[in-house]
Amino acid sequence: MSGSTKYLLSENEIPERWYNIQAHMPNQPPPPLHPATKQPIGPDALAPLFPMALIEQEVSRDPWIDIPEEVREIYKLWRPTPLYRARRLEKALDTPAKIFYKYEGVSPAGSHKPNTAIAQAYYNAQAGVKRITTETGAGQWGSALSLACKMMGLGCEVYMVRISYDQKPYRKLMMQTWGAEVIASPSDRTAAGRQILAQDPDSPGSLGIAISEAVERAVQDESTKYSLGSVLNHVLMHQTVIGQEAAQQMEMAGERPDVVIAPFGGGSNFAGLSFPFLRQNLTEGASIRCLAIEPASCPKLTRGAFRYDFGDSIGMTPLLPMYTLGHNFVPAKIHAGGLRYHGAGVLVSQLLKDGLIDAEAVEQLETFEAGVLFAQTEGIIPAPEANHAVAGAIRQAQQAKQEGKARTILFNLCGHGHFDMAAYEAYFAGKLESHKLTAEEIARSIEGLEEPVAG
Amino acid sequence: MSGSTKYLLSENEIPERWYNIQAHMPNQPPPPLHPATKQPIGPDALAPLFPMALIEQEVSRDPWIDIPEEVREIYKLWRPTPLYRARRLEKALDTPAKIFYKYEGVSPAGSHKPNTAIAQAYYNAQAGVKRITTETGAGQWGSALSLACKMMGLGCEVYMVRISYDQKPYRKLMMQTWGAEVIASPSDRTAAGRQILAQDPDSPGSLGIAISEAVERAVQDESTKYSLGSVLNHVLMHQTVIGQEAAQQMEMAGERPDVVIAPFGGGSNFAGLSFPFLRQNLTEGASIRCLAIEPASCPKLTRGAFRYDFGDSIGMTPLLPMYTLGHNFVPAKIHAGGLRYHGAGVLVSQLLKDGLIDAEAVEQLETFEAGVLFAQTEGIIPAPEANHAVAGAIRQAQQAKQEGKARTILFNLCGHGHFDMAAYEAYFAGKLESHKLTAEEIARSIEGLEEPVAG
Repeated sequence: MSGSTKYLLSENEIPERWYNIQAHMPNQPPPPLHPATKQPIGPDALAPLFPMALIEQEVSRDPWIDIPEEVREIYKLWRPTPLYRARRLEKALDTPAKIFYKYEGVSPAGSHKPNTAIAQAYYNAQAGVKRITTETGAGQWGSALSLACKMMGLGCEVYMVRISYDQKPYRKLMMQTWGAEVIASPSDRTAAGRQILAQDPDSPGSLGIAISEAVERAVQDESTKYSLGSVLNHVLMHQTVIGQEAAQQMEMAGERPDVVIAPFGGGSNFAGLSFPFLRQNLTEGASIRCLAIEPASCPKLTRGAFRYDFGDSIGMTPLLPMYTLGHNFVPAKIHAGGLRYHGAGVLVSQLLKDGLIDAEAVEQLETFEAGVLFAQTEGIIPAPEANHAVAGAIRQAQQAKQEGKARTILFNLCGHGHFDMAAYEAYFAGKLESHKLTAEEIARSIEGLEEPVAG
Repeated sequence: MSGSTKYLLSENEIPERWYNIQAHMPNQPPPPLHPATKQPIGPDALAPLFPMALIEQEVSRDPWIDIPEEVREIYKLWRPTPLYRARRLEKALDTPAKIFYKYEGVSPAGSHKPNTAIAQAYYNAQAGVKRITTETGAGQWGSALSLACKMMGLGCEVYMVRISYDQKPYRKLMMQTWGAEVIASPSDRTAAGRQILAQDPDSPGSLGIAISEAVERAVQDESTKYSLGSVLNHVLMHQTVIGQEAAQQMEMAGERPDVVIAPFGGGSNFAGLSFPFLRQNLTEGASIRCLAIEPASCPKLTRGAFRYDFGDSIGMTPLLPMYTLGHNFVPAKIHAGGLRYHGAGVLVSQLLKDGLIDAEAVEQLETFEAGVLFAQTEGIIPAPEANHAVAGAIRQAQQAKQEGKARTILFNLCGHGHFDMAAYEAYFAGKLESHKLTAEEIARSIEGLEEPVAG
């Protein structure tokens, strides 16, 4: 075995701008609609929840947005992240393919999520906001925002789904170590929470309820805003530091990826790695395949429908044009909690509709087989979400072997699994369930949702 | 805030040699003695447990030992590790001191331990060994050796203290993910384990019992050897990649440390960072203060005696000349499990005796106060062991402030706390106990041990 294992950039090579794919999309997505009137709404509708700088980013058509110096300073605590050549995994697969991975687990929170959390906290602090609220399920996002708020001197209130709060005490403690207030949801702090508790004092909670609580708190108080960890355009854009760095590192390696792979939840993980490569397709005539890997139990990209749907499960948000399984869809309790979202962000949905990106669905068992092989060859134990990208990359490498062809694969190893070892325990115990959805289940779940008409 | 945050080396700058301080010590330590005859013993006494290449390193007087290319290849999965300037911590402390830290938590196992685990597994594999046994308490060492054995194609049998096995399932799962067999100790696999179980079927185990089991297994079977994670000369030497890299990175930063600080358990953490700087003192006339930080509840360096004592708590090993609290000393159950060792490695003991290094003891509460301040300024949540170095560095920075003098501080952030969040929970709950030892307790514990005479 010879040649480089890691490709590192110095911290003055952290990107100076985020890439905004809205500037280069051949078709702009249909507009969001008001949940009640179903009329198109403007960005001002978001003002109670987000500071104006983020709302402007949400609708900007500028291809590049400057990253504030204060944000880049904090990025330096872990960025640029390393790019690895997975030489030991290649050898174990006996494949002619070259496999590269970008490792985002080196952030203090252990995932890619702080890339946007730091930026969001910064713009909130600039706007005079004192406190940010959010929801968290498995805890990756809540951790990232807790870290970001502490770095920017803001208060942070995290509504953590009750069952996760009880089952994942270490994630809760991580957030508390960074000074966040972590509240089990449903709580008695909000009308939404109290209403649920009145019906069921032992409610295990849900992401939908936690969102309602976090949003209610933000709307009530002018110095408090709300923050979301994926789906929205500006969130996806903040993650493009990943792909920009990776493109530079692939050049250092003297390689150009044939296929770029990332896990898919709401879209920020996938967008972060792939959009800078898609830019090469859209503006420079490149033909890099961008492949999103979603759980077979939550297959909005591969089996969902392109419809107007709510971003939350309760129906408070604007209606967004997205690939969705319906906002009432309840995904099976797979361990990749970050991928259990019913819909795909608007930008990614439009790109998929236009045939500019691809998607594959993978069963949970396959993702853990991939993750364990990865750990045993490359060392790092991936998060369950990251295992989806590992599985996608292994599929590509095996295909290359069958075809006897070279192929250069790049995937996003978006985080480590240090807080997810219980998922590995389930795998070793042979207790990972398969969750096959019938076509009828999916059809029922999207019933009544309106098909968007191109604007 | 401006200037660099991280100082990175490329992977071809991984040191090519380990530094062996035995070559430059003004006084060599007294010889080890046979436990029964109390006569000096030679290196061949170690042959049943360790491969010859490691035994040769144990007694070598060569200043530099080449690192095998295969070991450097695996080091590339995480080395060189980053050196950070702790700008945010400095600001929070409002100190004129400059604080740097070397971060070893980027290894897949999350600590510095793989630096020696990989090397030990390599030499065992070269010698035709098929399987390595070891003991682990909190799990850092067991994790590192599990990773190393998987990378080198060896079997790994980890005897994990029963109470940790039950209380730290995530550590156990980490080892299993890397293919190790993890056995709760006492077990029925060994005569030592069966004897304990016959007396007490519910025994919580101890590190002493686990060592006995691991050693028994290694002695029984020719293709099986045993491995230790600290204390021994060759283990300390393998860790010197840390200090060699750090010295180069400090040069990049244009700084020379006034004081170099590391946590102290058996000595490998401290030796790893400090020995390459001590070399500058011993051979180039530098005067860098090397400061070991130990728990106040296990103060062998600051309050122990220089005696011949056993390396284990049962009395199976040779008698070693060390600063010790006595092998029967049972340290309080502090969360920094890796620092709960009764003695100090022979090399470090001799250096302390000769006044070439310094030591301070810190109470558990102070270490966690330091760790939380560190997490809230620098992001990374340190392991409880690492918090000792953080506390030591903060003391130095505060002293510099009081004196109104510049001071350049470098410390070893030896690992992250992702598997130790229960310790932070205890801290937040105000449940960290103080463990003050009386002089009588210590005197009783070392009673009867023999004072070594210079050879």
